[in-house]
Amino acid sequence: MIFNVACQLDYGMRMPSTLFLNVQVQRTAAQRILSEQFSVAPQLNFAEFTPDGSDNRYVRLETGGLSSLSVSYAATVECESQTYGAGSIRPTPVAGLESSTIPYLFPSRYCQSDRLGRLAWDLFGKIENPHQKVVAISDWVYANVEYLRGSTDSLTSAYDTVTQRTGVCRDFAHLAIALCRALNIPSRYFAGYAYGLEPPDFHACFECFIGGQWVVFDATRLSHLNGLVRIGTGRDAADAAVATIFGAAVCTGITVNCTLGEGQRFVPVDHVHRNQNGVTLGPSA
Amino acid sequence: MIFNVACQLDYGMRMPSTLFLNVQVQRTAAQRILSEQFSVAPQLNFAEFTPDGSDNRYVRLETGGLSSLSVSYAATVECESQTYGAGSIRPTPVAGLESSTIPYLFPSRYCQSDRLGRLAWDLFGKIENPHQKVVAISDWVYANVEYLRGSTDSLTSAYDTVTQRTGVCRDFAHLAIALCRALNIPSRYFAGYAYGLEPPDFHACFECFIGGQWVVFDATRLSHLNGLVRIGTGRDAADAAVATIFGAAVCTGITVNCTLGEGQRFVPVDHVHRNQNGVTLGPSA
Amino acid sequence: MIFNVACQLDYGMRMPSTLFLNVQVQRTAAQRILSEQFSVAPQLNFAEFTPDGSDNRYVRLETGGLSSLSVSYAATVECESQTYGAGSIRPTPVAGLESSTIPYLFPSRYCQSDRLGRLAWDLFGKIENPHQKVVAISDWVYANVEYLRGSTDSLTSAYDTVTQRTGVCRDFAHLAIALCRALNIPSRYFAGYAYGLEPPDFHACFECFIGGQWVVFDATRLSHLNGLVRIGTGRDAADAAVATIFGAAVCTGITVNCTLGEGQRFVPVDHVHRNQNGVTLGPSA
Amino acid sequence: MIFNVACQLDYGMRMPSTLFLNVQVQRTAAQRILSEQFSVAPQLNFAEFTPDGSDNRYVRLETGGLSSLSVSYAATVECESQTYGAGSIRPTPVAGLESSTIPYLFPSRYCQSDRLGRLAWDLFGKIENPHQKVVAISDWVYANVEYLRGSTDSLTSAYDTVTQRTGVCRDFAHLAIALCRALNIPSRYFAGYAYGLEPPDFHACFECFIGGQWVVFDATRLSHLNGLVRIGTGRDAADAAVATIFGAAVCTGITVNCTLGEGQRFVPVDHVHRNQNGVTLGPSA
Repeated sequence: MIFNVACQLDYGMRMPSTLFLNVQVQRTAAQRILSEQFSVAPQLNFAEFTPDGSDNRYVRLETGGLSSLSVSYAATVECESQTYGAGSIRPTPVAGLESSTIPYLFPSRYCQSDRLGRLAWDLFGKIENPHQKVVAISDWVYANVEYLRGSTDSLTSAYDTVTQRTGVCRDFAHLAIALCRALNIPSRYFAGYAYGLEPPDFHACFECFIGGQWVVFDATRLSHLNGLVRIGTGRDAADAAVATIFGAAVCTGITVNCTLGEGQRFVPVDHVHRNQNGVTLGPSA
Repeated sequence: MIFNVACQLDYGMRMPSTLFLNVQVQRTAAQRILSEQFSVAPQLNFAEFTPDGSDNRYVRLETGGLSSLSVSYAATVECESQTYGAGSIRPTPVAGLESSTIPYLFPSRYCQSDRLGRLAWDLFGKIENPHQKVVAISDWVYANVEYLRGSTDSLTSAYDTVTQRTGVCRDFAHLAIALCRALNIPSRYFAGYAYGLEPPDFHACFECFIGGQWVVFDATRLSHLNGLVRIGTGRDAADAAVATIFGAAVCTGITVNCTLGEGQRFVPVDHVHRNQNGVTLGPSA
Repeated sequence: MIFNVACQLDYGMRMPSTLFLNVQVQRTAAQRILSEQFSVAPQLNFAEFTPDGSDNRYVRLETGGLSSLSVSYAATVECESQTYGAGSIRPTPVAGLESSTIPYLFPSRYCQSDRLGRLAWDLFGKIENPHQKVVAISDWVYANVEYLRGSTDSLTSAYDTVTQRTGVCRDFAHLAIALCRALNIPSRYFAGYAYGLEPPDFHACFECFIGGQWVVFDATRLSHLNGLVRIGTGRDAADAAVATIFGAAVCTGITVNCTLGEGQRFVPVDHVHRNQNGVTLGPSA
Repeated sequence: MIFNVACQLDYGMRMPSTLFLNVQVQRTAAQRILSEQFSVAPQLNFAEFTPDGSDNRYVRLETGGLSSLSVSYAATVECESQTYGAGSIRPTPVAGLESSTIPYLFPSRYCQSDRLGRLAWDLFGKIENPHQKVVAISDWVYANVEYLRGSTDSLTSAYDTVTQRTGVCRDFAHLAIALCRALNIPSRYFAGYAYGLEPPDFHACFECFIGGQWVVFDATRLSHLNGLVRIGTGRDAADAAVATIFGAAVCTGITVNCTLGEGQRFVPVDHVHRNQNGVTLGPSA
């Protein structure tokens, strides 16, 4: 599928600040960038960088003496969907995991899997099939957490959400990730553009390493799994925030867009648990 | 300097479990392993692995049906000390940091730097020189937290320690790291063997990226900075735990040792804040 | 029923300390003290006091220069059981509650009902009958929290237990209280002696104000509801601790006993949810 | 001094709700109500009640089918100021405290004094005189916490504020109370009207029991201690909230006023630590 994605972010600054922006889509074998444009107004030098062991593309901006600036990004991206034989998947013992997935077993800032162990085992411990286990987790989060804009903030973590039971896409993802890790399933945060998301915004989902590959899930059920364009992945939102601000910049406006490329026809794959063996699913990692 | 390090860890298992052990010293340009031996009794297959973007050497063990096992490690290691011109160091703006250090600016499970921002700025914001800033943080942690064995557990994080004010080396390190990150100084957890530590044990310190290199600090003041042998580094103890257990294994015994290599003579460099320009300091990264 | 209760508490002191002990049984219309004896060795002056709006009997002890002391208490108590027509109970609207019960609607140190609102409504909001609602809460706590000695400490609160899912009687009580208050049912902590408790110890349960009276519940199911002798009630364990220590005293030994009075025959009433209309239940308030 | 106080609170309801309002001033020996008027529009029955062991005057309102309502209160009150010989005060040992003050030594929902013990002793343990100790605490809170509207919410407690270091009057009071209790000084929450507060609003301070009486302090320094009119006291804001809502009512408007009675002349007593022996201070309890 080909998608056109775009965003505009406006900032006001009270002092010279540095911004790390993470709005550009990843460039991977499964996701080809056909064209893209990143611009800052007023014009400003910026540098792109990618930390070791990550495909996230950060842009660093130094605001200098500016009191406001505006960042625009637009890209046309071809994303491969992944085919995934859910039915035949077998649990991977921890001892058999690829070493690149190990860090996603560990607790992180917003995903305190070490504190959710008993709960996770009580709720999901008996499900053998790892795909069904993650589907059960995703369904449980969907059923027990209410999507409520403004009910959480940047301090909110899985340990809060599991009890307070409200949140936005980021909180849904954090809780699902923490539960998966507590059950020894490598799990990571997925940030991206989402076709058909209402209202349009950046979106957060989660990925689990099952059956030898990273598979995407959306506990909010707000996106189509084959309508996602990958911006970043990481242990949690701390690694894949849209913007990390050093100094004092305030976001004053944000617009996000994701449409179909010319001539594309979209057949939604709605939720992973409705999929059976070998169907087309989400974006490949 | 050449050190002989050794440890023995005994475990009892109530069910088949997987252990990730992180007791072998890192093999880097600055740390040459002259000899080493890792063994498990009863004999058991094991595999070493190193996650991407890390030099930590984990060993994976599957306990199978064993009800107890014992792990032994011994090595002779030559460690280069680092020379560090503290006096002439200048702050590195965030925009100028090497991309490999960026993840160490982000909050992590035990180092919630995002919640300590104001406190860190109030206490240390006015110190310009980054070396002096970290020394002030390390001194503050030393002065305000009491080393008290048994006062904390594996759930304890910097957010707790900053108020509860007791802990062990791990807690001292976590709090110092969180304060450094809150001030935009990349900071990471250091786990190692420590010559002269009383009683002998594994030790935890922290490293900051200042003046273009990782520099080690010990907020507990229990080690000699040039008496450290590096096992692992990571965002916090979640990344560099001695043992990560999947299943149900309980540590029943632990001995740790760090002595001087034959013919070596040790002149302690006691605390980083007593050093001036260009003196020999801690282990190189 | 007539019970003989007794306890002995031994303390060691490193400095002059003040102890508030709360081991004497309440003296109320429903609980007659036939005889009792409280003594301290070595002999020491002590004073009994009862804070306003409470029936708890605290003893204040100043340890002076003693390095150890031992407190003994023994009493023979006649407790009225309460008859309670569970079937016909109707919800009391908040507006109709007696003013003495209002403080037990508010969150307290260990019972953060304000943070458990959504969870409580999701789980129990649809149960109309207040007795059945509390029984459902008590059953849920029993089913979802594992009784595990040593798994919690004096800092553990309902907000932790709801996720961590282990604890002792105190933690079971705190969680049940918090859930009840979140549903606008006045609920308080009950501390007492418990006939038949194994191993013998002080016990904690909870009481709810339903149908115009305080009714006792035990989410641990470790006691017989008609085998309880009331020591104290309060908002949570902060109000009804066995010992509150000012200074530095450490408990070095503790024995507790609760036996039947001579000639008494005990027919256990096992769990409140097995009771129907009008049966004999727990101790009257 | 005679003050005219007034407030108007507007609420919108989405379902029948019960409100407990606590806006009426206390009627005590030290605070005489010369006239007062409480009204609800549209007209509605309401009942006043005062829980045992409290002088707070709550009003209960059942909203029934109303979709909005407005509450108005106005009173003219004569408040006695208290004279307080700060210089000659001696510490009261815990063992000598009046039993009515004991509950104010215990931790509460928003004042987790049990978690602040070491910090409190480190910072203030060496100050002997209890008045000076509380002044030092109040000054420390003032110096280390920034008054920042909107930075906290109803979940914020002393344990958060001590690290996050922002808040409003309620947060300042909670932190000061927790520190005092940690040092065995009975301390409670004070809610009231404050003459000269800018912008006009309800205000929160704290009271400590020193020298045999309750003495008021304001860690925000926003009020004049002799310009306070007492509405309520309690363990923390949970006991003395302006409004406690059962159901779903939202405050849509609030105005508060506190002016001088006719012919009165006000000489501010600005901060307790500027007072010496025997000066006129705050409202009597």
